[in-house]
Amino acid sequence: MSRIRVAVDMDEVIADTYGAMLDWLVGQHGAQWSSTSLQGRQIFDVLTPEIAETLREAMHDGAFFADLPVIEGSQSALAAIASRCELFITSAAMEFPNSLGPKFLWLQRHFPFVDPLNIVFCGDKSIIAADCLIDDNARHFQRFGGQGIVFSSPHNANVTGYPRIRHWSEAMGVLAEVFPELL
Amino acid sequence: MSRIRVAVDMDEVIADTYGAMLDWLVGQHGAQWSSTSLQGRQIFDVLTPEIAETLREAMHDGAFFADLPVIEGSQSALAAIASRCELFITSAAMEFPNSLGPKFLWLQRHFPFVDPLNIVFCGDKSIIAADCLIDDNARHFQRFGGQGIVFSSPHNANVTGYPRIRHWSEAMGVLAEVFPELL
Repeated sequence: MSRIRVAVDMDEVIADTYGAMLDWLVGQHGAQWSSTSLQGRQIFDVLTPEIAETLREAMHDGAFFADLPVIEGSQSALAAIASRCELFITSAAMEFPNSLGPKFLWLQRHFPFVDPLNIVFCGDKSIIAADCLIDDNARHFQRFGGQGIVFSSPHNANVTGYPRIRHWSEAMGVLAEVFPELL
Repeated sequence: MSRIRVAVDMDEVIADTYGAMLDWLVGQHGAQWSSTSLQGRQIFDVLTPEIAETLREAMHDGAFFADLPVIEGSQSALAAIASRCELFITSAAMEFPNSLGPKFLWLQRHFPFVDPLNIVFCGDKSIIAADCLIDDNARHFQRFGGQGIVFSSPHNANVTGYPRIRHWSEAMGVLAEVFPELL
């Protein structure tokens, strides 16, 4: 039997882009938002157009993506998934093309066990052929051919209809519920 | 009915990477190879290990990919495909991560009608969910779920078993043979 193919998103799933955006906003604009006040909303939806533009500019500089913190528990969880499944990293990176190189190097640094040939940078994730996709953006699941699994982030707190991983420590358990053959 | 999704490779299909490699070898090493003498063989297979290493080094500098010539006829053919089908560009770029940014900019410059969200940089193309893949490397077809279509390049002259596009002017005709609903 061929192995189950698991696709995993980067931003806000294994890389704390969300936290880095908040830190940048607080540092540059003394912003008063916290992840609690952003519950159920995307960062860009609560910013004024002017502040959103300054954040986009900062993110167009690829350096923004070079030193993102690693999401807690993701390294050991992905190592476990890679030992049982076929693991791909699938990142929507085309909005910020300068992030492509830094994101690749970040993956090599923090997830050295991920085969570079299993890294995918794309926009529309309906192009991904995998059994499941672990992603914080449920909009990617609508045209995706496999099973979407939500990875919790403040902005998706109200999303329902998909299995959910709240912390990477739950990942193998949730995957085994979706794919009983992993048990 | 949903539209047919066509994935198209970059190097040696719409970008003349092959010609640029030959030019570089002739310029740097006074190499005597021509595309005729390379019939049926990959460039890296005919180089000494030392010369192959210098070429790889040159290609690790992303600038190598910034100014590649466009393959003849590819722009009008892809515009025609995009008007009838769902077009994705799927490039195996992970061997040369510094090529990621230059490749994206090259696509925006020469194929401005390609939606950036429909650009995919990957390694293993079995991750691509598409009805067909136009590629010069038939090895990508082995685990690909759709129909592989060979795009002619000197190195694949001896490859059989797949529909073949010898020049972009043939593309819509070959696609219509594979997908009669396009007629």
